Amino acid sequence: NYARLDTSREQRTGFAEVVYCSGKPDAYLADIYKRLLAEQGEVFGTRATPEQYELVRRQLPDIVYDPVARTLKQERPDKVRSGCVVVCTAGTADIPVAEEAAQTAEFFGAHVERLYDVGVSGIHRLLDKVDLLQQANCVVTAAGMEGALASVIGGLVRNPVIAVPTSVGYGASFHGLSALLTMINSCANCVSVVNIDNGYGAGIIATQINRLACK
Amino acid sequence: NYARLDTSREQRTGFAEVVYCSGKPDAYLADIYKRLLAEQGEVFGTRATPEQYELVRRQLPDIVYDPVARTLKQERPDKVRSGCVVVCTAGTADIPVAEEAAQTAEFFGAHVERLYDVGVSGIHRLLDKVDLLQQANCVVTAAGMEGALASVIGGLVRNPVIAVPTSVGYGASFHGLSALLTMINSCANCVSVVNIDNGYGAGIIATQINRLACK
Amino acid sequence: NYARLDTSREQRTGFAEVVYCSGKPDAYLADIYKRLLAEQGEVFGTRATPEQYELVRRQLPDIVYDPVARTLKQERPDKVRSGCVVVCTAGTADIPVAEEAAQTAEFFGAHVERLYDVGVSGIHRLLDKVDLLQQANCVVTAAGMEGALASVIGGLVRNPVIAVPTSVGYGASFHGLSALLTMINSCANCVSVVNIDNGYGAGIIATQINRLACK
Amino acid sequence: NYARLDTSREQRTGFAEVVYCSGKPDAYLADIYKRLLAEQGEVFGTRATPEQYELVRRQLPDIVYDPVARTLKQERPDKVRSGCVVVCTAGTADIPVAEEAAQTAEFFGAHVERLYDVGVSGIHRLLDKVDLLQQANCVVTAAGMEGALASVIGGLVRNPVIAVPTSVGYGASFHGLSALLTMINSCANCVSVVNIDNGYGAGIIATQINRLACK
Amino acid sequence: NYARLDTSREQRTGFAEVVYCSGKPDAYLADIYKRLLAEQGEVFGTRATPEQYELVRRQLPDIVYDPVARTLKQERPDKVRSGCVVVCTAGTADIPVAEEAAQTAEFFGAHVERLYDVGVSGIHRLLDKVDLLQQANCVVTAAGMEGALASVIGGLVRNPVIAVPTSVGYGASFHGLSALLTMINSCANCVSVVNIDNGYGAGIIATQINRLACK
Amino acid sequence: NYARLDTSREQRTGFAEVVYCSGKPDAYLADIYKRLLAEQGEVFGTRATPEQYELVRRQLPDIVYDPVARTLKQERPDKVRSGCVVVCTAGTADIPVAEEAAQTAEFFGAHVERLYDVGVSGIHRLLDKVDLLQQANCVVTAAGMEGALASVIGGLVRNPVIAVPTSVGYGASFHGLSALLTMINSCANCVSVVNIDNGYGAGIIATQINRLACK
Amino acid sequence: NYARLDTSREQRTGFAEVVYCSGKPDAYLADIYKRLLAEQGEVFGTRATPEQYELVRRQLPDIVYDPVARTLKQERPDKVRSGCVVVCTAGTADIPVAEEAAQTAEFFGAHVERLYDVGVSGIHRLLDKVDLLQQANCVVTAAGMEGALASVIGGLVRNPVIAVPTSVGYGASFHGLSALLTMINSCANCVSVVNIDNGYGAGIIATQINRLACK
Amino acid sequence: NYARLDTSREQRTGFAEVVYCSGKPDAYLADIYKRLLAEQGEVFGTRATPEQYELVRRQLPDIVYDPVARTLKQERPDKVRSGCVVVCTAGTADIPVAEEAAQTAEFFGAHVERLYDVGVSGIHRLLDKVDLLQQANCVVTAAGMEGALASVIGGLVRNPVIAVPTSVGYGASFHGLSALLTMINSCANCVSVVNIDNGYGAGIIATQINRLACK
Ligand SMILES: Nc1ncnc2c1ncn2[C@@H]1O[C@H](COP(=O)(O)O)[C@@H](O)[C@H]1O
Ligand SMILES: Nc1ncnc2c1ncn2[C@@H]1O[C@H](COP(=O)(O)O)[C@@H](O)[C@H]1O
Ligand SMILES: Nc1ncnc2c1ncn2[C@@H]1O[C@H](COP(=O)(O)O)[C@@H](O)[C@H]1O
Ligand SMILES: Nc1ncnc2c1ncn2[C@@H]1O[C@H](COP(=O)(O)O)[C@@H](O)[C@H]1O
Ligand SMILES: [Mg+2]
Ligand SMILES: [Mg+2]
Ligand SMILES: [Mg+2]
Ligand SMILES: [Mg+2]
Ligand SMILES: [Mg+2]
Ligand SMILES: [Mg+2]
Ligand SMILES: [Mg+2]
Ligand SMILES: [Mg+2]
Repeated sequence: NYARLDTSREQRTGFAEVVYCSGKPDAYLADIYKRLLAEQGEVFGTRATPEQYELVRRQLPDIVYDPVARTLKQERPDKVRSGCVVVCTAGTADIPVAEEAAQTAEFFGAHVERLYDVGVSGIHRLLDKVDLLQQANCVVTAAGMEGALASVIGGLVRNPVIAVPTSVGYGASFHGLSALLTMINSCANCVSVVNIDNGYGAGIIATQINRLACK
Repeated sequence: NYARLDTSREQRTGFAEVVYCSGKPDAYLADIYKRLLAEQGEVFGTRATPEQYELVRRQLPDIVYDPVARTLKQERPDKVRSGCVVVCTAGTADIPVAEEAAQTAEFFGAHVERLYDVGVSGIHRLLDKVDLLQQANCVVTAAGMEGALASVIGGLVRNPVIAVPTSVGYGASFHGLSALLTMINSCANCVSVVNIDNGYGAGIIATQINRLACK
Repeated sequence: NYARLDTSREQRTGFAEVVYCSGKPDAYLADIYKRLLAEQGEVFGTRATPEQYELVRRQLPDIVYDPVARTLKQERPDKVRSGCVVVCTAGTADIPVAEEAAQTAEFFGAHVERLYDVGVSGIHRLLDKVDLLQQANCVVTAAGMEGALASVIGGLVRNPVIAVPTSVGYGASFHGLSALLTMINSCANCVSVVNIDNGYGAGIIATQINRLACK
Repeated sequence: NYARLDTSREQRTGFAEVVYCSGKPDAYLADIYKRLLAEQGEVFGTRATPEQYELVRRQLPDIVYDPVARTLKQERPDKVRSGCVVVCTAGTADIPVAEEAAQTAEFFGAHVERLYDVGVSGIHRLLDKVDLLQQANCVVTAAGMEGALASVIGGLVRNPVIAVPTSVGYGASFHGLSALLTMINSCANCVSVVNIDNGYGAGIIATQINRLACK
Repeated sequence: NYARLDTSREQRTGFAEVVYCSGKPDAYLADIYKRLLAEQGEVFGTRATPEQYELVRRQLPDIVYDPVARTLKQERPDKVRSGCVVVCTAGTADIPVAEEAAQTAEFFGAHVERLYDVGVSGIHRLLDKVDLLQQANCVVTAAGMEGALASVIGGLVRNPVIAVPTSVGYGASFHGLSALLTMINSCANCVSVVNIDNGYGAGIIATQINRLACK
Repeated sequence: NYARLDTSREQRTGFAEVVYCSGKPDAYLADIYKRLLAEQGEVFGTRATPEQYELVRRQLPDIVYDPVARTLKQERPDKVRSGCVVVCTAGTADIPVAEEAAQTAEFFGAHVERLYDVGVSGIHRLLDKVDLLQQANCVVTAAGMEGALASVIGGLVRNPVIAVPTSVGYGASFHGLSALLTMINSCANCVSVVNIDNGYGAGIIATQINRLACK
Repeated sequence: NYARLDTSREQRTGFAEVVYCSGKPDAYLADIYKRLLAEQGEVFGTRATPEQYELVRRQLPDIVYDPVARTLKQERPDKVRSGCVVVCTAGTADIPVAEEAAQTAEFFGAHVERLYDVGVSGIHRLLDKVDLLQQANCVVTAAGMEGALASVIGGLVRNPVIAVPTSVGYGASFHGLSALLTMINSCANCVSVVNIDNGYGAGIIATQINRLACK
Repeated sequence: NYARLDTSREQRTGFAEVVYCSGKPDAYLADIYKRLLAEQGEVFGTRATPEQYELVRRQLPDIVYDPVARTLKQERPDKVRSGCVVVCTAGTADIPVAEEAAQTAEFFGAHVERLYDVGVSGIHRLLDKVDLLQQANCVVTAAGMEGALASVIGGLVRNPVIAVPTSVGYGASFHGLSALLTMINSCANCVSVVNIDNGYGAGIIATQINRLACK
């Protein structure tokens, strides 16, 4: 009974409460899933472990778990998705973060296109897809190591690019700090940045922009 | 003859070339202003010194300089501005960065409302203006020191918040690093961040979002 | 026989020795608990593991363990608590640190009110409780991620705010560094800061201030 | 007309607005001094340059400037000061910061004792004054370089110690970061920390504590 | 008479002594230029100020100064340059560092092609020149801010890329640290990095590689 | 089907795709080994665990694992190696990184000489081998802790030195950051640096240089 | 057969080879212990695990293990120790590092006095022992957290103080960085610093100084 | 009258008060020089500017200023110097720091030999002087940039090496931080480190060791 639920959030911000599963006590987790499902008719969570999936599934048998994105959700079947958000990654190791972003955006009603493993060291892979990038209302770019992808994309499009540094890399990547600095210093003017590995936040912002464009 | 002008930028990205005056050699500066004015019918520059103003004014007598924002511009008189971007600051010392953002957005066609000196240590000043914040297609928030303003605003609105950390502060503000970290770690989901003091970038992104909303 | 007990501490500083259980060898731990209980009639420890609880309980069956706060204590039953310390958190994940502070203050005689999960991204939750905050002789604020809560509270009260950055967060929170910098740079004048996750220290200082106010 | 004066501050927090002179435009500075003096009957400012003193003095001939503390103030002559705040420094170079703290506390009604140049490399200088330290309701400790003084004092007193790291030092002092880390990690439980060189904040908090003790 | 000249350097390493002019006392500078010119028949220096140029010119009237690259040199007129080193920059502000590299390589016998202002935010400028890049025995890439150019080039060529981070940028570029981290983390396998602004070192290494290729 | 294979890499850059085994899902790993072996007639991977070796061996019984270098490879038996690359280490703990470099270079056709445990605190061990160092077309130097070896070698040779900082050390070695900074600041002009523990990258660059020298 | 033993070390530096057990492969460890014991008649190692002790004991039954200091040694029984080295700690958690220093010094012939748990927050514990400190030819001071002890001791003695920062602490102690900075910035002139947790190095240097004093 | 002179310092520590001239107010400086000269018969100061020299010389005409070392001193003419301290530098730019160390040691009675510009990129310059290094009771090593010299010397001698990182360098030398980290991580066991540019401290410690050896 410690938590003070922010019940007016959907009305205030347009997005229902999402469960950040990481570190939530077991006793509390299944409970909150049940309650949110009852209230909202659907429920979405991030950073769930396989153990948490088992736990929640015992109470909500229709819950769906994606072990790559670590999302745990039960979604209304008839959801219509509109607009266009493109989610890109530099490498395959960035896909978990990208999927967190993509599925967040999809849960909140955006149509999403994925463009994975198009990092700058093989730039032709990206250039083949410029048309798709230019159709997006918002591009989400997840990249670790040197994080250069965001700047290249930023120079190719007219709509906002949300850059997500990932903790992919080793040594002087400093768990995502290098990619974060790269992206914050982007010479492309339309790049803004969220926290390291924060696919969720990027998905929310992309959805906001996509909603404005679809109005 | 070193510079390789990116002439297709407006067509590719929707924004004409803007002059980053800082450190440009004198010989080059007036020249580029003249050329861009001829090509575009108007011209916009940032980070200009009073000396650069004098220099350019000798060639372009109608050029306008704002010593607070350090913008140097000649704008088409009949420009129509649409939509709504709100630009906020925590303190008065953040105003130069905020004005760089506001004037960039205005130059590229956005209607801008200013809400300055509404930092969190006197939160009532901000709460009095919640209606205005909620009308914005995008809110730009410039703040130095601890940079907490972005998170508070992020919890009050449904559209994107672009946070600009400023180098305002001393000691452990580390020239804006503290505010940058605050904003990147924002618990409000709709906050994304640009470089320290990068009002220009924030203005561009706000304009992109505002354009999508006005389409 | 390595340790040189600081036996005059209570007389010198007003606070009896508290056991910092983290890393203490098993052999030594039960022993020191017994000795301090004998000398002081009560004993208080922080950062205890469940294993350490089992260990000590075998010797002191009345010892009490709180698995959230990780405190391990045996307290005089008739303790009178006076004054008013308010302990706040931004999120639910900050509660362990907050409870370390609250229980330390209670052990040393302060009356404590808890105000948890009132972070700035849903500011109305805090504003509903301004009256309580203003009654406090001292407010302890535990927050991770961007740590903005301390500044907002600092602008609402006339007595000292002790800010405790927590290691809650991920990515660029850098294990509490981000929250620490936010709090050290607070634009609210009455905020001072203790180490990351140092609920204990915050509880001691709040008690000192509360005692001065109750004199 | 940019600034949004926080006029309810004294009523809300117990401290009238103080002028942070650093970087204030000339046009604005004399004006705000006049207005605050008219409203409050006295006025206090920090971080003033000699040039700002000359500027303000032309309008307010009774203004007083302290070139060491860089305070610029006009104080009610009949002020009664109560309680006891002790302000210490490790070396002579820390005195400007200490004086900012001391004069802030005095302006807001605290009786202040100074204990300067008592750094730990000649510990007898401090030990000779333990009696004075123990009479203080609050001790403010300004120290740069390794900042060890706060911990030593923290072990000798029963009331709070507010530690102010200073930017005194060179090389690996990193402009005060070293002293800040020392103080934040203090093994003495009653030490809390404000920003590097923030004598003003320390003075405010010491005054708050002193007021509680004098009530 | 403090300096211990490393007279066997050319024989040992293949490169004659180069004068690092920065901070050299006036008395010493002209002298060393004269001596090296006498010994080597030519002389090359970096980081020279206009004042140092005037000073040396009084003694060596044929000395040549480049105010952009800050090189100060007298070169044998009949020098034959062979092979191919390409020197690139992301922006125009990186040109001083690039020219230090280019002129160092030319002085030591490499043929150099320049490719300036081809940063990743307008990637077509670079892609137009892929043929030239692929002819190089070594590519030197100078870039500040986010430094992404090195990775893109690294994915297009089969020979080594020497990346020089520059201190160009502001805010979170941290005087070149951001670009250094980007480059050190490059996902392109053929990128190695020298110190921030160290055009000289990059020029030497490019020359070594070019010499091996021309043997 | 997420990964977008960069199939033209060998043709574009001269190096076939290498498998970075770290973190690759089991299902995917054996598959990619089989496919690359089929396509290229040989296959090379780095950062493989013993478990991954067992996994791949079940499908490719001739695969070879080196538990020190953590390479997992199947190499054409008749490979001719040419030129000369020397790989050095400061201590024995740097050998895993050095072997990653050496085996990468050997896989891609370079003749490699090893010179291990010749760190600067016993400088005679290195000086005994100066002849060998001077025969190398490229020297790779792996060192942790203070990383001084690269500078000493850099002063003894005429060809490039590729420095690999290793994460060997403790305390203020900060997982290789100290060695990285040492090497980036090398006073020897021919030293360039790759990421911490990036033996693979160093091996590629050494091979490129060696190939140019052998042409 | 990778390792290149530095066999002339004792003759060159006065100290026989010591085994740094951390991370040594099992196969190699027992072997090197046997060989060094045969050559030197005694052998000393640091950072040994209990498992390594069991391993070595199977071959050398007289080997002695100290689980606190993690030393593993077999010492000549008739060793005479001379001079005086004092080893201090701030808290009990610093004792493992201090014992590494003390036992290193004892192994190499110094007489050692221990003074543990005399940290600055209870300064009387130290002041009671000033006589002992002043008799030392060298004082080794191990302290974590804020590391202030070294400066206080440095102000009380006439001979060198070797400061060892320890990784004891949490939060902003940053694994010993805070203590390292404190000690490097010491205002006491006779303090020099070794790496975090490097008791061994401190023991060697103290022995060197003690030997010079005993000559 | 702020300063609390540490008058018992010479008796307590063996070293008279030295004037740290940097930032001392003019009024105070000449005065303290006169008083210390009267008391001690000689006086020594560091970090003096040419202006401070002129100022003091007006009162003490026999004062001597060294513009390289920035020392300002008047020394007893008949001083006998004993023992042997060797002071080394890596480059010529490190000489100011080295001279501060050398002159401090000489002032306090040590015989000093200088060995300048013997950095590791031309290692033969150092190896020619091994005999001299081995005669020293203590070696002081001043080096910037990568600071590798200390480790090489540490492997060649049996007595302590005091390493002084200097702020010489640019880019990633980070004003001496790189050299400091190199030295703190030295693989040579006898190296301990003082603050960046702290020649004075190194001189004091070298003198202490030299005195012990001469007793
Ligand atoms: N992956 C994520 N990263 C950051 N924030 C998240 C993430 N997933 C959910 N959230 C936010 O965390 C909130 C829940 O936090 P809590 O109150 O700790 O459960 C949600 O309402 C979201 O705003
Ligand atoms: N959670 C805590 N964080 C910091 N210090 C603590 C904590 N709990 C106890 N302490 C302090 O640590 C001291 C005991 O340290 P030790 O001598 O290592 O047992 C106590 O007297 C307290 O001052
Ligand atoms: N711009 C530069 N950056 C780094 N090193 C340089 C530069 N220019 C010259 N050098 C090196 O510095 C050496 C001269 O250093 P010094 O002995 O201080 O004059 C030359 O031999 C070059 O190796
Ligand atoms: N270059 C220097 N670096 C560090 N400390 C110094 C230096 N020169 C003198 N000192 C010390 O500073 C003390 C004087 O400091 P102060 O009381 O500020 O004048 C002297 O007694 C020395 O211990
Ligand atoms: Mg890939
Ligand atoms: Mg204001
Ligand atoms: Mg919550
Ligand atoms: Mg003093
Ligand atoms: Mg350009
Ligand atoms: Mg070895
Ligand atoms: Mg203790
Ligand atoms: Mg030199």
